[in-house]
Amino acid sequence: MTNRIYELQEIHNWSAEETSLAITSLDEQLPIGLHNVAFQPVFFSQGSPSLVAKYGPLIAARGILGCYLQTELGHGTNVAQLETTATYIPETREFEINSPSLTSSKWWIGALGKTSTHGVVQAKLILPGGKDVGPHLFFVQLRSMDNHKVLPGIVIGDIGPKALAGFSPTDNGFARFDHVRIPKENMLSKFAQVTDEGGYVQPPHAKLSYGGMLYIRANMVTGAGWMMAKAATVSLRYTTVRRQGEKGPDGLERQTITYPSVYIRLLPILSHAYVFLQLGKSLLKSFDAMSKRLASGDTSLLAEMHATTSGLKVMVSTLGVHDLEVARRSMGGHGYSAFAGLGRLYADYLPSTTYEGDNFVLDQQVVRAALKSYKNLFSSSTPSAASLSPSSYYLRLLLPGSQPPQLKDSSWKDATFAINILEWRAAVLVREHAKTFSQPDASVNQRVSKAVTEAFIAGQVGQIMDNLSLPIGTSNVLRSLYTLYLLTVVEAGLADLLSFGLLRPTTNSSGSSDPARSLRLYISQLCQELLPNAIGLSDAFGFTDWELDSALGVFDGKVYEALWQRAQEEPLNRTEVTSGYEESIKPMLLRGQRQVAQGRVKL
Amino acid sequence: MTNRIYELQEIHNWSAEETSLAITSLDEQLPIGLHNVAFQPVFFSQGSPSLVAKYGPLIAARGILGCYLQTELGHGTNVAQLETTATYIPETREFEINSPSLTSSKWWIGALGKTSTHGVVQAKLILPGGKDVGPHLFFVQLRSMDNHKVLPGIVIGDIGPKALAGFSPTDNGFARFDHVRIPKENMLSKFAQVTDEGGYVQPPHAKLSYGGMLYIRANMVTGAGWMMAKAATVSLRYTTVRRQGEKGPDGLERQTITYPSVYIRLLPILSHAYVFLQLGKSLLKSFDAMSKRLASGDTSLLAEMHATTSGLKVMVSTLGVHDLEVARRSMGGHGYSAFAGLGRLYADYLPSTTYEGDNFVLDQQVVRAALKSYKNLFSSSTPSAASLSPSSYYLRLLLPGSQPPQLKDSSWKDATFAINILEWRAAVLVREHAKTFSQPDASVNQRVSKAVTEAFIAGQVGQIMDNLSLPIGTSNVLRSLYTLYLLTVVEAGLADLLSFGLLRPTTNSSGSSDPARSLRLYISQLCQELLPNAIGLSDAFGFTDWELDSALGVFDGKVYEALWQRAQEEPLNRTEVTSGYEESIKPMLLRGQRQVAQGRVKL
Repeated sequence: MTNRIYELQEIHNWSAEETSLAITSLDEQLPIGLHNVAFQPVFFSQGSPSLVAKYGPLIAARGILGCYLQTELGHGTNVAQLETTATYIPETREFEINSPSLTSSKWWIGALGKTSTHGVVQAKLILPGGKDVGPHLFFVQLRSMDNHKVLPGIVIGDIGPKALAGFSPTDNGFARFDHVRIPKENMLSKFAQVTDEGGYVQPPHAKLSYGGMLYIRANMVTGAGWMMAKAATVSLRYTTVRRQGEKGPDGLERQTITYPSVYIRLLPILSHAYVFLQLGKSLLKSFDAMSKRLASGDTSLLAEMHATTSGLKVMVSTLGVHDLEVARRSMGGHGYSAFAGLGRLYADYLPSTTYEGDNFVLDQQVVRAALKSYKNLFSSSTPSAASLSPSSYYLRLLLPGSQPPQLKDSSWKDATFAINILEWRAAVLVREHAKTFSQPDASVNQRVSKAVTEAFIAGQVGQIMDNLSLPIGTSNVLRSLYTLYLLTVVEAGLADLLSFGLLRPTTNSSGSSDPARSLRLYISQLCQELLPNAIGLSDAFGFTDWELDSALGVFDGKVYEALWQRAQEEPLNRTEVTSGYEESIKPMLLRGQRQVAQGRVKL
Repeated sequence: MTNRIYELQEIHNWSAEETSLAITSLDEQLPIGLHNVAFQPVFFSQGSPSLVAKYGPLIAARGILGCYLQTELGHGTNVAQLETTATYIPETREFEINSPSLTSSKWWIGALGKTSTHGVVQAKLILPGGKDVGPHLFFVQLRSMDNHKVLPGIVIGDIGPKALAGFSPTDNGFARFDHVRIPKENMLSKFAQVTDEGGYVQPPHAKLSYGGMLYIRANMVTGAGWMMAKAATVSLRYTTVRRQGEKGPDGLERQTITYPSVYIRLLPILSHAYVFLQLGKSLLKSFDAMSKRLASGDTSLLAEMHATTSGLKVMVSTLGVHDLEVARRSMGGHGYSAFAGLGRLYADYLPSTTYEGDNFVLDQQVVRAALKSYKNLFSSSTPSAASLSPSSYYLRLLLPGSQPPQLKDSSWKDATFAINILEWRAAVLVREHAKTFSQPDASVNQRVSKAVTEAFIAGQVGQIMDNLSLPIGTSNVLRSLYTLYLLTVVEAGLADLLSFGLLRPTTNSSGSSDPARSLRLYISQLCQELLPNAIGLSDAFGFTDWELDSALGVFDGKVYEALWQRAQEEPLNRTEVTSGYEESIKPMLLRGQRQVAQGRVKL
């Protein structure tokens, strides 16, 4: 596929952007993705000018193919503990790359197993005399350019299949290095450097290389938004076509989307898609603003960007995986067919909860940032909301004079109530965590991280709603959709809201003592209002049948014809009698018949 | 595999039970499973004595291979709407099986696609004159016994791959029937019958045929227990071996199981395994008691068994799927390797949330049974707990004189408090749902069903704890494990408990206003107490490495060696240079190099 795309690029003189779109439209997890998204950006952003001049054109034109070797068999998230070494040899001006143990084997490296000719290796830099100055990056040739054979001193292979048949097209690989020498120039030394004699030159800013990681995380928000959009489109289309239950006056069974237990699962997914696609847009703007400052050495926006993208990365990957499965399951039996299309998306998207920072580790960083903001705010002699960044703006509620909102019957119809109470939840949870920090419970990081991120998102959603400038009918529908998002977040956070007394059981006008009841009733009402627009709101994503690749999500609604057609094309159906008949089935049948004929079978 | 097993059965003269164990130990979703678990039991339990005499021995000896054709392309859970017809033709004493539409195609039928020679077809019985008396079962030959070709008038094929590569070994198939005639004797007529003239003879008890379905559901509890046990064993072993973080005084990084965010996820899975394995045992005893009564025409235990198994089926399948993924994700990056072993279990277990009754449909039945019990209790002039069955025993709390327990600092150490409060939650939720029945919210069935089932399980767990008769040390460990189960259920139910005022925010002795804090702290404490026994408690399941089939769950803890070894056996690694090199990789490399040489690449 990849070779053909670049062949077409040459034939049609496609631009880099057009080629990138063509690859994206294939929607396959191809090895070239690792070259384009990991190897090439790292090389260009951290290679020295001379190294970039020497190899840059070949990399850009894919005259060499690369991968990024970071993770090891025994070490993942904690990069500081990587074992691979790069020892500088001043006598020959070389580095010696070495894998000292089984657990130091590079592992999981995408495009390494069979494809790459070169790689950027993350290894501990050891200076003459043995001083370890921590992980640095080195450009290493892996395979011969003549015959693609692995170079001497290196052992490379594929690490085998992934769970759920995910990432099948990618050759995740392993590599071990046995004292492999590379020239000194091959260290990526735009920031840190080694002198010819083996002296170490510190990078000017320790965090200058973080930008790329933040860009990937920011992009994950938009990526998750499109994933949720696909899940919503396929499942809403199918449950609109699918009928089940007693026949109505029209002689037809009921559309499954009209069942509360179905629409209460699917419409929130639709709202997630709208929220995270919008959020992704504004996040990329913030990223551009930060990058401009970074380019002039100003790292002031880095911490805020890091806190925001960490929390959002956890949120969108956890929620995206969850939504894909909720949508698949809502489609009943046919959702389990590969032809439904959501299974493969799930299998490929699943590791997003682990890669680019394991979600449970990132939660800690979100909490750490929140506690820091909390302490900064109250360590001032005159605490003021003016000092708060967008990601910690909810903390203003802890300043003197603020009171939690009181629940009334009409509260849920007002999106600002939901936003306010979600901000209160975050503020109270952070304060509580700061107070009880020495005696935490086991899941506190997850709860605090979630509350903080949801408060930030709620604030952003409020701004999106304020800025809606579409025709009034459309704006109202979108307003309902965004409100549905907010209220379902509130519902999922009820335990915290109730246990901190932000909501309280009362006897209200409907006679119920359950404060969640009015919330849930209004969520149901919103869903019913949105139902007539569900197909329109998902059609608006503009997916083609090719992009959805789902028999259940076809635009014309002919789902049964599509399932039938795909089954006819199933390779197993090319022959009427399976090749296993003579070998396996017939012997079984004959054995059983013989046993019966011999009277050996008792019932 | 299957043919070899039956060959070995003949060679070694294995009993049916030994053969069944051999098949189970293969742990593959084989087509023969459908013959053994669906086709054969239905045939024997519902076929007439003469039909059983004629085909029973062949079926028992697998001289013919069968499948069970119920689900259709357009119809699943709602069997009443199936479209396939079986029209009785008195002139020839035959039934004519027909698929009148695309949507009537039998679909998803396991072992139909390539394997089965015969099947039991669920079809609407149409009497002469056109009267439709609903779905009945018919024994139909599908393929020639001479050459395995599909018989005239029938179209059969495989429906294609399943999501996540699940159930790969099973040939789920489709079938369409074009007015296919079968002899009258082929109707499974142990209960309902058709006279030669076309008269309809009603079955003596409408629900006599339900027993089999309940047996499958009861077995699902034990099956889920073993699934959870596998997930717990693999993940606890790996996270005990895996180290990550800063190095301690021993020069080693920290074992990942010692992180609160890891053990808080894994120890509850261990508790689920113990709970549901025990529950499965007692459920099969109840099933045997019911079966004995059913055999004498006494259906009095059927409703209770139906209510119990419906709720438990929903619970164990939802929780089992969830636990498999939680365990997989707790293992970080390596959890996504197919060699971790949990991915395939997940893919195969996933449809359990849909088959044997979609969970969201079954929830309705649980709620219906609960409301019926509630109304029965209070329609009596002297309501009494004596009339309550085990599955509705929690409703006694609504009788005059009962008061919800008051939370004290020590409450969570007392398992009966947790059991009591879970029963109160169910009772209050059912009462509330009965009161507001005309205006339900969209997710009420799911919440009520869960609360009712968890109250039942909590009561059962209380009995298990009361009956522990092991050495005191072992009993205490198990008591902690069962308490952990109860308290994590309480924690997940906090929103209901708080919104109904069964728990309330208060200022307690620790100064916190959050009533959930003491609960969560005690859960953390229980986890820490259990940690030293986690490996022992999972070793106690007695899994062999063969059964776990996981590089990360190997008994000797040499997980990295196991991953390395499996990677070496990966077929892709048989050749150093992939066959795709000449075809795809080399042309790309040469194209890129040519573009650079021609000076066409700008950076």
